[in-house]
Amino acid sequence: MEIIRTKADLRARVSNWRSAGETIALTPTMGAIHEGHLSLVRLGLERANHCVGTIFVNPRQFGPNEDFATYPRDEEGDFAKFEAAGCDAVYAPAPDQIYGTDYKTEVIVHDISDLMEGASRPGFFTGVATVVSKLLIQAMPDIAIFGEKDFQQLAVIRTMARDLDLPIEILGAPTVREPDGLALSSRNAYLDESQRRIAPALHEAMIAAAATVQNGTAPEIAADQARKATLSAGFQEVDYIDIRDQDSFLTATAPGDNLRIFAAARLGTCRLIDNLGI
Amino acid sequence: MEIIRTKADLRARVSNWRSAGETIALTPTMGAIHEGHLSLVRLGLERANHCVGTIFVNPRQFGPNEDFATYPRDEEGDFAKFEAAGCDAVYAPAPDQIYGTDYKTEVIVHDISDLMEGASRPGFFTGVATVVSKLLIQAMPDIAIFGEKDFQQLAVIRTMARDLDLPIEILGAPTVREPDGLALSSRNAYLDESQRRIAPALHEAMIAAAATVQNGTAPEIAADQARKATLSAGFQEVDYIDIRDQDSFLTATAPGDNLRIFAAARLGTCRLIDNLGI
Repeated sequence: MEIIRTKADLRARVSNWRSAGETIALTPTMGAIHEGHLSLVRLGLERANHCVGTIFVNPRQFGPNEDFATYPRDEEGDFAKFEAAGCDAVYAPAPDQIYGTDYKTEVIVHDISDLMEGASRPGFFTGVATVVSKLLIQAMPDIAIFGEKDFQQLAVIRTMARDLDLPIEILGAPTVREPDGLALSSRNAYLDESQRRIAPALHEAMIAAAATVQNGTAPEIAADQARKATLSAGFQEVDYIDIRDQDSFLTATAPGDNLRIFAAARLGTCRLIDNLGI
Repeated sequence: MEIIRTKADLRARVSNWRSAGETIALTPTMGAIHEGHLSLVRLGLERANHCVGTIFVNPRQFGPNEDFATYPRDEEGDFAKFEAAGCDAVYAPAPDQIYGTDYKTEVIVHDISDLMEGASRPGFFTGVATVVSKLLIQAMPDIAIFGEKDFQQLAVIRTMARDLDLPIEILGAPTVREPDGLALSSRNAYLDESQRRIAPALHEAMIAAAATVQNGTAPEIAADQARKATLSAGFQEVDYIDIRDQDSFLTATAPGDNLRIFAAARLGTCRLIDNLGI
């Protein structure tokens, strides 16, 4: 597996494959690779001839009080996992390959970026849209794959790619979970043993709320029950538990098709997010 | 000369040329083609095998009280001029090829976009950076050429293309002028006969100010003299006449190298802009 550090080398690699008539999948990540990321790679290799894993911990998507400095990093371990999953190359750019001195440009996706994660984390989605547009333009893959675990992020990226006319298919991959239902996340590493036992309660509360809505209960009532259940289970704070249309992201006012439940809650120093189709 | 209306056809055309090992220049314009635009085409054909003229009157770069509705449009005339100058194709996209319903994404270049034209026309440079990033991604030419008449715009576009990693060379072409010094502009069509006689006074005042700075006068004094001369000549209002470093756009506090004088002033319903290296 080739390890690529510069955008020039990335372009040369992709261009060689393309000249040979081969297709390329890109899986942008922030590293701390787990089975969720590897499922993106496997989907990439089903759909394209080559998969390039990408590792870049993007400073622009962290707020001033967030965990950029302590975000888990394990480059050697990540390389080994990407290689075992079948990646042909990993792009782990030096920071100056992404943001030069005097960097000035931002890509903003309006409306979707202001809700839920965007409301809890101001500037987060602009940081994401900016770095992903750059990675996509640097690599120009045929497809790029992101986890549905970050469902709102996936919507922001799809909208950005469509609006900027990037000739790249954006694919979502289903959330991978622990046996007890906890969605895989690099940030789960922040949980201590007792928090880890509490953590699946968020997903359980979401399943219960989804079932309640399917039985005809008003979404706001079901979401409120889920908030209470999450706090009773031992979470310190619920940032949001919302039931919304999964395309428009409008708050659901009645049970119906195409709804999804979205949640973010704090457990110790760890902020967990999850979502589930209803 | 081929007339292209959709981004799919544009991509197919460019891709055919590229497969044949040929290079492509793009000259984005808002139409109302004059000799200034045609000089971009000629420069494009010196540097690349093919030149694609582009005509799109971009609603997102006009303010609510600006001249989007009345901006001069003459598509048939523009096509004839592009063809005579040697364009191989013109891309004149249908509006839905640029902004679909539900369009949500903006490209913002910070700092440079806030000064001079950006201060006078809030949102203008974001409209420009957004549409130009889209046109560049749609066409993916080897080079794209813009007039130095809009010098600050050229800087915004260069910065956007660099920051988004677009593998496209951005070239500036010198301002083309009428024999009396008035910089060519599609908006000169708004001038009546008596205004047209007054119009070159802006350029004359800028030449005088540049000479004064070269002789050692403080830039602020020279700029102030130019403002007064422009108003005395019959302009109704000076938006700005600034002497700045032409790379950093910092206001010049002393005579020196790399300075440029920038001006915007109103004459009747017409807003003229111009700039000049010192």
